[in-house]
Parts: sequence; C-alpha cells; structure tokens
Amino acid sequence: MMKMSTICKGCWCQKHMLMPIHGPLSVPFKLVGVRPSRMNPNICNMCETNFRKVRKAKRIVVPAAILFADVRGYTGLSELLESQRVSQLLTLWYDQCAPAIWQRDGIVNKLMGDAILAVFNFPITRGDYVRQAVLSGIELQKNCQEVRASLAKEGTEKDIPFGIGVGISAGQVSIGEVGEVCKDFTVVGTVVNLASRLQGAASAGEILVTQEVYQQMGDVAPCSVDARTAKLKGIEEPVKAYALKV
Amino acid sequence: MMKMSTICKGCWCQKHMLMPIHGPLSVPFKLVGVRPSRMNPNICNMCETNFRKVRKAKRIVVPAAILFADVRGYTGLSELLESQRVSQLLTLWYDQCAPAIWQRDGIVNKLMGDAILAVFNFPITRGDYVRQAVLSGIELQKNCQEVRASLAKEGTEKDIPFGIGVGISAGQVSIGEVGEVCKDFTVVGTVVNLASRLQGAASAGEILVTQEVYQQMGDVAPCSVDARTAKLKGIEEPVKAYALKV
Repeated sequence: MMKMSTICKGCWCQKHMLMPIHGPLSVPFKLVGVRPSRMNPNICNMCETNFRKVRKAKRIVVPAAILFADVRGYTGLSELLESQRVSQLLTLWYDQCAPAIWQRDGIVNKLMGDAILAVFNFPITRGDYVRQAVLSGIELQKNCQEVRASLAKEGTEKDIPFGIGVGISAGQVSIGEVGEVCKDFTVVGTVVNLASRLQGAASAGEILVTQEVYQQMGDVAPCSVDARTAKLKGIEEPVKAYALKV
Repeated sequence: MMKMSTICKGCWCQKHMLMPIHGPLSVPFKLVGVRPSRMNPNICNMCETNFRKVRKAKRIVVPAAILFADVRGYTGLSELLESQRVSQLLTLWYDQCAPAIWQRDGIVNKLMGDAILAVFNFPITRGDYVRQAVLSGIELQKNCQEVRASLAKEGTEKDIPFGIGVGISAGQVSIGEVGEVCKDFTVVGTVVNLASRLQGAASAGEILVTQEVYQQMGDVAPCSVDARTAKLKGIEEPVKAYALKV
C-alpha cells in the first residue's frame, strides 16, 4: 500500500501552502469540502476543481510530461468476455496503473474505457519529471504482465494476448479548465496530441517516446531501445521516436 | 440558459427520493457535500461518486443509449493553432455539447480532449431515451455549424474545416464503478465499444447509428438517411448502420 502524504503536495509545490488532506488535522478541511483528489490522493481536490480560484487564472502554460496508455485489442476482448468480467479486468488495470503514476507524483487526469492519460510535473513539481514518467511507463508494462497472468489462469489468455501500448512526450502544455458551462480540468497542446498518437503507434509491450523524452530520461535502463521514424496521424512531419521495452 | 431542476432527477428516478440540489432547500445538503453533478447539473454527485453506497451494488446492468462524438482533424487543428486558442475552441465545443445532452436527460460521462461520451437513461430514466440520444446528436451537429462560423470569422476555417463525427448505439450496458484504488464512474460493454467505433467511422457531419437505434428513434426526421454495412475495428461481424445527416 502506498504511503499517503498528510499535506497536499500540489498546494505545497504551487503555493507553499500547508493544506492537510490525511490524518486528524484534515477533518475540519473535509467539512468544507477539501478532500484528497481522485487524480492523485496526495493532492487535494482544490488543485483541480477550484483551479481558477486557486491559480487566479483559467489556464497556465507549464512544462510537463504526458503519458497515454491503452489496452491493445480491448474491443475484441470485450466481444469475447461478459461485461462484468470486462469491468473486473478494467478494475485490475486501473488499480495497477494508478499507484504506478501516483508514486511518481503524476496525476491520472483521465480514464476513458481502457485508455489512461497521466500528467507529470503538475501540480506536484519535481526536477526529474520526465524520468518519473518513463519509470511509470515501465512499471505499467511490468504490471500488465500480472494482468496477463491472471487471464492465463482462467484460460482466456490463450485466445487474446492482453497487452498495452504506452506513449510519452514532454514539453510546454496548457493546463487548467476547459468549458464554462461544462467545466473540465485537463491538459491541452500539441505535446498532448503527440503522446496520444505515439501511444496509438506503439505495439503491445512498447513504450514509444519522443527524442526529447529519450534524452531526458536519465538513468532509466530499458531492456531494449529501438529508434524509429514514425508517421503519425494528423501530424505533418515524421517524428523521431524511441521504442523502449522492459 | 437551461432551467435547473430543484431536486435530483437521478435520485428521483432511481429511488423516488427527494434530494434538493438547487434553491434554498439544497443549502444544508451542500454542507454535507451533496452538490449538482458535473455530468449533469440536474442530478447530484451522489449518483456517481457514492454509487456503491446508493445502489448497494458496485455495478448494475441497465438498458441505455450511448453517444460518442469527436472533432474531425483535431490533431491537425492543434498543430495549426496556439494552445490557448485550442482551449478556447474546446470550451466552445464542450459548452455547445453539454446543454444539448443535459436538456435531454443524458449525462456527460467523459470528456477527453475533443472526445465526449454521453449516456442516456441513467440515472434519469425515460421511455424515449433512444430518441433523446438521437435528438442530442442532431443538435450537436447543428451546434457544430456555429463553431465553424466562429472559425470562419477569424479566417481559420479556410484552412481547416471544423466538423464532428457522432456514433450512437443502444442496449444493455454495465454501469457503475471501475477500480478499487482508483475509482471511476463509467459504462462498460459491447454497446459502448460499438458506439465508439461507429463514431470513428462517421464522416464529419454524420451521425452513425445502429439498426436498433434507427428503429427506436421515433419521429426524429433527419434530412437524409444512408444505410450502410460497416466493418469496424475489433468487431468480427460487419455492422448494419445508418448515417443520419441534418
């Protein structure tokens, strides 16, 4: 089990403010609606739902790493299994994903079916956020093997090899609220679309990263690195990418 | 502006319970954390965040209509425009989408970049939910023309024609919480994947629906209907679909 921070790490990094979110001191704050965020239990919900009040701006531009991951062959898997079983698999997948991201100070910004979007370096900032994003990607691929083992036990694995694809990019993103009537806290920018397209181009078992990510990932040592030039949908120029395997 | 319901329509439909969410009676409930949901301001957040407590089950299987919509050429659009401008466009898009869905008693279950996932018939139930889903799809396409007009005014439209694709299916879906550590309220099932794939296959300006939806949409009269057989990714058998245009 992951150890929880007693104060909101987001409020601390962004404003050097001590906001209790776990333990006895957090009780009065819970009464006025401050709770651990679903995106990362080490930050508070104010970091996302009251973004505009807290930041005095609707959106801000910050450097961040963006990670997309999804399950290869999810639609086919859903056709083969009962919906309750698919929910169980998604539960297993979400519960493997989230701690891998939270422990490295990222937030799970979006979950949509089998797809996950994580952001690193906001609201919790740290110098090695690119490295942390890649480490999360590697852990996701390792955890995926556990899901596969669970499927193998019941014999489903024979028919459908469970695997995930991961895409990671880094750079300036616009983060904050989209929508006035229907508000949503999310990241926007070419860096976000690029990570999404890299994920789409990654094979099962692969972590496809941009050159920038590859250069900034520090001491991370994947089992294999395969440099390639990827032609991605909606992006004019071919992109230099690196496929990491664990 | 949309007229808000003073009680939660979800709590009423699901449990015949009067839960005040707007107006003076809602104040004490707000103090204990009951607020209008972001998914639809006519339901309360208990309908989603406390699903398990409220329903005494983690997930339930119910008949529903599922609507997916997204912006065609969004990645290309993002390459061409500044991220702040893309955020503005997304704001316009979300704010056109949400009321079209809320007014027809649907919920905006997910927003992910340019993609939207709406559910009809839960937690607010009504006999003609399939018709309501199609009416929402038609309104989305009409609203899209307004976004296009806004782009035309600034001259961007010349370069990138803004358009959306919509996919709608109907049938039994599993709805409720996915994840134990990282909880998420969502819909799961082949019907959900089918709507997603139909959306992917829809051209800009089209609402692609299943035969079941077509037969149940009642008096909805689109400008044109084009029957086709679609081969969809991850789905073995070709699917009989109808492309509606407004």
